[in-house]
Amino acid sequence: MTTVSDRPSTTAPSGNRTGLTPDRADHHVDVAYLETALLGRWAQIRRDSRAVAADPRFAKEEGLSMADHRARVLDQLKLLTTDADVLRAFPVHLGGSNDAGGNLAGAEDLILADPSLQIKAGVQWGLFGAAILHLGTPEQHEELLPAAMDVSVPGAFAMTEIGHGSDVASIGTTATYDEATEEFVIHTPFKAAWKDYLGNAGQHGTAATVFAQLITQGVNHGVHAFYVPIRETTKDGSAGDFKPGVGGEDDGLKGGLVGVDNGRLHFTHVRIPRKHLLARYGQVAADGTYTSPIDSPGRRFFTMLGSLVQGRVSLDGAAGVATKAGLITAITYGNQRRQFAGASETEEMVLLDYREHQRRLLPLLAETYAGHFAHERLLDLFSAVFSGEMDTPESREDLETMAATLKPTSTWRALNVLQTSREACGGAGFITENRLVSLRADLDIYVTFEGDNTVLLQLVGKRLLADYAANFKGIDGVGMARFVVERAADSVLYKTPISRIAQSILDSGSVRRSAGHLREEATQRELLTDRVESMVAELATALRPASKLTRANAAELFNNHQHELIEAARAHADLVQWEAFTKALETIEDAGTRQVLTWVRDLFGLVAVEKNLAWYLINGRLSGQRARTVTSYIDRLLARLRPHAQDLVDAFGYGPEHVRATIATGVEKERQDEAQEYYRALRASGQEPVSEKSLKGKATGGSKG
Amino acid sequence: MTTVSDRPSTTAPSGNRTGLTPDRADHHVDVAYLETALLGRWAQIRRDSRAVAADPRFAKEEGLSMADHRARVLDQLKLLTTDADVLRAFPVHLGGSNDAGGNLAGAEDLILADPSLQIKAGVQWGLFGAAILHLGTPEQHEELLPAAMDVSVPGAFAMTEIGHGSDVASIGTTATYDEATEEFVIHTPFKAAWKDYLGNAGQHGTAATVFAQLITQGVNHGVHAFYVPIRETTKDGSAGDFKPGVGGEDDGLKGGLVGVDNGRLHFTHVRIPRKHLLARYGQVAADGTYTSPIDSPGRRFFTMLGSLVQGRVSLDGAAGVATKAGLITAITYGNQRRQFAGASETEEMVLLDYREHQRRLLPLLAETYAGHFAHERLLDLFSAVFSGEMDTPESREDLETMAATLKPTSTWRALNVLQTSREACGGAGFITENRLVSLRADLDIYVTFEGDNTVLLQLVGKRLLADYAANFKGIDGVGMARFVVERAADSVLYKTPISRIAQSILDSGSVRRSAGHLREEATQRELLTDRVESMVAELATALRPASKLTRANAAELFNNHQHELIEAARAHADLVQWEAFTKALETIEDAGTRQVLTWVRDLFGLVAVEKNLAWYLINGRLSGQRARTVTSYIDRLLARLRPHAQDLVDAFGYGPEHVRATIATGVEKERQDEAQEYYRALRASGQEPVSEKSLKGKATGGSKG
Repeated sequence: MTTVSDRPSTTAPSGNRTGLTPDRADHHVDVAYLETALLGRWAQIRRDSRAVAADPRFAKEEGLSMADHRARVLDQLKLLTTDADVLRAFPVHLGGSNDAGGNLAGAEDLILADPSLQIKAGVQWGLFGAAILHLGTPEQHEELLPAAMDVSVPGAFAMTEIGHGSDVASIGTTATYDEATEEFVIHTPFKAAWKDYLGNAGQHGTAATVFAQLITQGVNHGVHAFYVPIRETTKDGSAGDFKPGVGGEDDGLKGGLVGVDNGRLHFTHVRIPRKHLLARYGQVAADGTYTSPIDSPGRRFFTMLGSLVQGRVSLDGAAGVATKAGLITAITYGNQRRQFAGASETEEMVLLDYREHQRRLLPLLAETYAGHFAHERLLDLFSAVFSGEMDTPESREDLETMAATLKPTSTWRALNVLQTSREACGGAGFITENRLVSLRADLDIYVTFEGDNTVLLQLVGKRLLADYAANFKGIDGVGMARFVVERAADSVLYKTPISRIAQSILDSGSVRRSAGHLREEATQRELLTDRVESMVAELATALRPASKLTRANAAELFNNHQHELIEAARAHADLVQWEAFTKALETIEDAGTRQVLTWVRDLFGLVAVEKNLAWYLINGRLSGQRARTVTSYIDRLLARLRPHAQDLVDAFGYGPEHVRATIATGVEKERQDEAQEYYRALRASGQEPVSEKSLKGKATGGSKG
Repeated sequence: MTTVSDRPSTTAPSGNRTGLTPDRADHHVDVAYLETALLGRWAQIRRDSRAVAADPRFAKEEGLSMADHRARVLDQLKLLTTDADVLRAFPVHLGGSNDAGGNLAGAEDLILADPSLQIKAGVQWGLFGAAILHLGTPEQHEELLPAAMDVSVPGAFAMTEIGHGSDVASIGTTATYDEATEEFVIHTPFKAAWKDYLGNAGQHGTAATVFAQLITQGVNHGVHAFYVPIRETTKDGSAGDFKPGVGGEDDGLKGGLVGVDNGRLHFTHVRIPRKHLLARYGQVAADGTYTSPIDSPGRRFFTMLGSLVQGRVSLDGAAGVATKAGLITAITYGNQRRQFAGASETEEMVLLDYREHQRRLLPLLAETYAGHFAHERLLDLFSAVFSGEMDTPESREDLETMAATLKPTSTWRALNVLQTSREACGGAGFITENRLVSLRADLDIYVTFEGDNTVLLQLVGKRLLADYAANFKGIDGVGMARFVVERAADSVLYKTPISRIAQSILDSGSVRRSAGHLREEATQRELLTDRVESMVAELATALRPASKLTRANAAELFNNHQHELIEAARAHADLVQWEAFTKALETIEDAGTRQVLTWVRDLFGLVAVEKNLAWYLINGRLSGQRARTVTSYIDRLLARLRPHAQDLVDAFGYGPEHVRATIATGVEKERQDEAQEYYRALRASGQEPVSEKSLKGKATGGSKG
């Protein structure tokens, strides 16, 4: 494991000379303590997983051809089954440990080995295997899981179609039951129904879990999953030709994840035995009679899809890890790299002492911390649901909403942070050996796969509206405030007694209009909560006429408010993260660390307010005068946090063996020191050339030149 | 050349059914007319250049290894010298046409062939060759230009050092004159002074223009350029080993532009003849006496660097072209791709009919138009200066400021548009064959090379402050308003009589506080102008104490306002583009086209206002009530422009042979039509399975399920 001393020492902050010295420089982050705190509930699993991520056998090799990269990743995938503990989610009697939460916690850091490997593993075990696990019966587990687990059958998860991405309910592939032979006939009726973008489908997969409209006895029972062999397995165990009736294409080169063999599949009347309908939520008897434990087709569909929520939870975690790696590089480099003379004529300024550089990086650092703590709560909830500890329809719905809230937030953040970090490192950021561009390219697809981010935020917005409608039939303002707090507490802090937080808001009922200081928790909570509440209420009012309109006009009314719906979901995401961060602060025992983290939380909260400042002004929540203080308080927080920036990224707990960026290893500081020493020696030698500028200055007696 | 009919037909907008039908649907874009208008002043050069960009011999071949891509690009570069007219900037007697403006206009579209080829060409002719051209004497042109022009000497432009990117004045490489041998000794004193990120330095270059501190007779005369052979030329004309004393490394893989061989160079007491100092702005006599036609070392330095402004102008144009290609793909696809049922139960909605999709893409389309017209004015100014038609210190300074304003704006926009376009195309956007990820990766470095965007904006901010300081010693508000208008007119519309525009503002002195409609040109101008003016004035006041402070304290005061300085530059960029767009509208003769473009301009202006709405509210420029109308007017503009979106991208004049994105060729529409036809036939056949949902609905008499 890494220790703090592995990393280059922090350049002393240069602000000490001035009146703007951070005003509480006596507070310090206890880096080792914070690192442990961040490891959280699954600390040992994460430590083990970081050892795997640091193992050169699993590292991405840059510049490989697509073919070589794919082959390497397939080999690595098989190696993981023996040399890493990657099957925790599967049943104990099949060699797993039935630990859904631990499984995801352990999968996150794999992105630092190679995102292609993480996604290939996600396809094999988190999608293909998980479909069998969650949608199959115990008998199907016995039959199908072992080969999925040990990768003797690499499998594709064939849900998305060319014509239908996020709208799974409308896919075109059909699975028609034939009583005569007791088989399903899997069929692709037109080109738009080809399955596409499927990992393992391009080259390595020999089977797939295929999602299709289940039709029996003339009735379409909606989307179900089927286990379909797609390629022969050759003697050496690799994938051979397509099975009869199966066809496809390789997606070829992509913008990233080049080590994953994405591809397209289509089926021409492919027959599979009846038993290969994954039958947990829907069975077809030999005579074609359909039965399901869930009567409502709509609820059945959402239950089936909901059992696959782990993909989103997993991406939320992985995006957070990549984000941390980017910030470690940018902040370490920004603490060493010097450019342009500032206060001193002989010494250039360190980049991170520039206020614009702080403005670009430190709010992202605050967001990354907020995202970290929110992800931990999401994992808690995921674990509670999937361990059965708290598996209710309500908690499943909360889990899906929270995943739909955080996955878009963290994946867009990852792209933003990696890009900003690459720019903050200038040309060096563009060189592959410094890894930022490589990570960004691989992460790009995260914002549209496993649920397009915009579509997910719209789902969140609809959930907010539905909750609102269910709770707000004619209640007053106080009731509304309570509702919002309950909802926030529900989704973020499901274990927390709702009453306590709700009460604290109600007790301070005048906060909204009072001159509460921006640094106060209650003020920030009120500002963020009020925004979600008011936006949802305004939307609900605007959409109320929909129930009386024709389908077409109602759809149009809804469409006209789509942007506000998505904005409301974003506001909800801010609140969820802020609440998770605030809750986490209570658990930080070291006083200095807690103080610094509190500033980080304040920065997160106030930047969220600043981004939406016009809303607060237009809606009379902040006066012009107070709105100005948001920005000036952010400026103060940046100055306070700047000396702690290195500690805050060091505490992420990743060493050079994980980050693998040459410029984050201290080479820049060596170069800067060498250059400074050269000039120092030159001045001391008396051999330094005189500058023409200073000569001219002397000649004219002035300083112009 | 492409014609409009090459492109897939526009799907009829589906908004006609509803009350929100665009209210002026009688206006139409004359696509052919607008295409010609956009070709502008250098129309024939651009037509020729588009033919080159469409030539498969120059096209990027995706998936090549780095070695193969580099080799291909070098071959293409040589082919350009014979098969394309790429040497227009060079002197007529050497085979050029001494047409700096036409040269840049013709270089822009090359990015659609392969950005690596464009940058390789930019390195060879726009940097290496241009340094000889602009910094060398006529004798040096005779000696050195021909081999640079015909690529018999591939050359690097060795300015940037590992330790110094944007701060060129501080580079560490020295060129010390030795009277005894009449040679300069080029030397790299420490690792941070290695030249880095240089195109042609990694592999192909046999010479370089090296920037170094010129030292003679014990005096450092500042940065000058030297012509330095770096590698042997082998018998077959390719680059061999490094020359004695020269060393370097290959930068290896990068995030994009993989076909350009970037590398590092260092020099150990490398001797070059005296005549290889590029001597236009500074000469050293045999005895070591330094002379220069520019007495001030500061002004000399900026003159030398200023002559290299064409790189920024060129990137501004190229970024605009890539941006257009991205939007063509996203909007064409968005007009064909259907997802989720909306108004109709049997027909899904086209993506571009979703309001959020419009919100994501149409403001970017407006920005792209604004950027286009601003770039045309920048090219005019560049041409006027470099043709000698208007070559004054003031016009050079205006040119540098305008380039420093637009290059950051357009290059960041390119990344934003290409990423948003890729996301708007979902998974298909991530597949390399649809080109968006490939273009984005290649464009990434544009935001930090040829002047880091943040540093450039800071330069713009300083220029605004300097102009302010020079003009504002004790004048009143009207004078201030006039100043700002003059400055804007100067930099954007340098041929326009200042008085006319200034007068129009002064006549309407009450606009700022009046209830002028947001769609009115005068209101938009006032809002955008006022913001620049006020931000600069506020900054000037805040920085006034600096003159009385110590160096350290003044530097700190300045640093504390760095963010506002950069924000002021961004506000200036909005204004410059808006003015250029508005000026261009006057030249559009077709009434329908002009009306639609006016809406596009309004959208650009109001989105710029909306992004900074908090500023307008805090500073009392807009009331809360009027601020709300900004957003609602933007919504109306989006609805109005939506039916014209395809026309507006078609008018960019690029065909499939330029865009080369499979999904923008109409395949998606074919797939959608096929799927719709399948379902139509199925319904007609009476064989369509009944849905379980509708059966359950009937059974219970309700529609719940």
